[in-house]
Amino acid sequence: MNEKGLLLVLSGPSGSGKDTILTELEKRESNVKISISMTTRKPREWEIDGVHYYFVTEAYFMRQLESGQVLEHAQYGGNYYGTPKNPVDTWLNEGKTVILKIEVQGAEKIRNLYPSSVSVFLMPPSLKVLEERLRKRESEEEEEISRRILTAIGEIKRSIDYDYYIINDIVNYAVSDICAIIQAEKQKTSRMKNIISEVINNA
Amino acid sequence: MNEKGLLLVLSGPSGSGKDTILTELEKRESNVKISISMTTRKPREWEIDGVHYYFVTEAYFMRQLESGQVLEHAQYGGNYYGTPKNPVDTWLNEGKTVILKIEVQGAEKIRNLYPSSVSVFLMPPSLKVLEERLRKRESEEEEEISRRILTAIGEIKRSIDYDYYIINDIVNYAVSDICAIIQAEKQKTSRMKNIISEVINNA
Repeated sequence: MNEKGLLLVLSGPSGSGKDTILTELEKRESNVKISISMTTRKPREWEIDGVHYYFVTEAYFMRQLESGQVLEHAQYGGNYYGTPKNPVDTWLNEGKTVILKIEVQGAEKIRNLYPSSVSVFLMPPSLKVLEERLRKRESEEEEEISRRILTAIGEIKRSIDYDYYIINDIVNYAVSDICAIIQAEKQKTSRMKNIISEVINNA
Repeated sequence: MNEKGLLLVLSGPSGSGKDTILTELEKRESNVKISISMTTRKPREWEIDGVHYYFVTEAYFMRQLESGQVLEHAQYGGNYYGTPKNPVDTWLNEGKTVILKIEVQGAEKIRNLYPSSVSVFLMPPSLKVLEERLRKRESEEEEEISRRILTAIGEIKRSIDYDYYIINDIVNYAVSDICAIIQAEKQKTSRMKNIISEVINNA
């Protein structure tokens, strides 16, 4: 119905369950495309290039950045992370729903670049649950866990800037909420102005 | 999750299918309450008091109006129509989703009285389909049909003031869109401020 697709930004503390939610969402919604970030950090053992991230060199990252091909980027633990622009714009022009999994600073940048984008903040049921989830990841050391919890608190404090707020207690419910948000947003009058004009002009 | 329920205003030209949609919606969503309007007009043969309308005398209507018990009202074909205030506020306090089926002037009043309410405009697929649907209603005379189409055109021109726009081509899809809107609206950050404050204060 719309000429362009819907851009949805998903943020949430590390351990809020973003990846689980997105894997489920992709299964349910064929029109959804999930943007893959670029990073200069080394892949973890289980991570696959082009699936979890595009693992790139710092030189490549910088070239892309300078040529305006990175929508938002951040430096984190000495590494760069960024969202490639080209696939996002291509998918939006094809009418797809494009999902960006990014942190709060990046989300703010996207809101400015794409004012009609929609943002969703994913919350773990509590900080206690968040800590438990982080501990289950064997890759994380104690110091890293503490650091992530501090970061999470900072992010939660900025969650009020988001359009929607989902508490990820039961995965299926959270996915259903995101599906409902996508479906509802497509019916927003502000997104249907062309159709409405057409109806009015034919009336 | 919310302390108060969601107020949803549904408008659309006569023949857009509001009643069919609401009957289906009530079957699917147990938390939905549909406000019943008062009117001073005589019931049609198939109309039941307390189901389609509360059929009241003009004297009763005026007393309710003067005591502030009518949220919005309109005069139409020499008769009064109005939305009783009390059930709406009671249901909202109980956390229900309350649906008001009202015309465009009334919708504007509700928007001012309940700024966090949500409005949905239901469109027939085309004016031609609208005319066909009106003709199928045996109760309508030719002059009445022409008058309703003129009114519809005026209403469609004001549809841009609504939050959401649904084209009622296939009933099940339109109902599913309204369900998605209700589900999504409940996740709006603006409606979850209390929960978010609690999480932030405990962080």
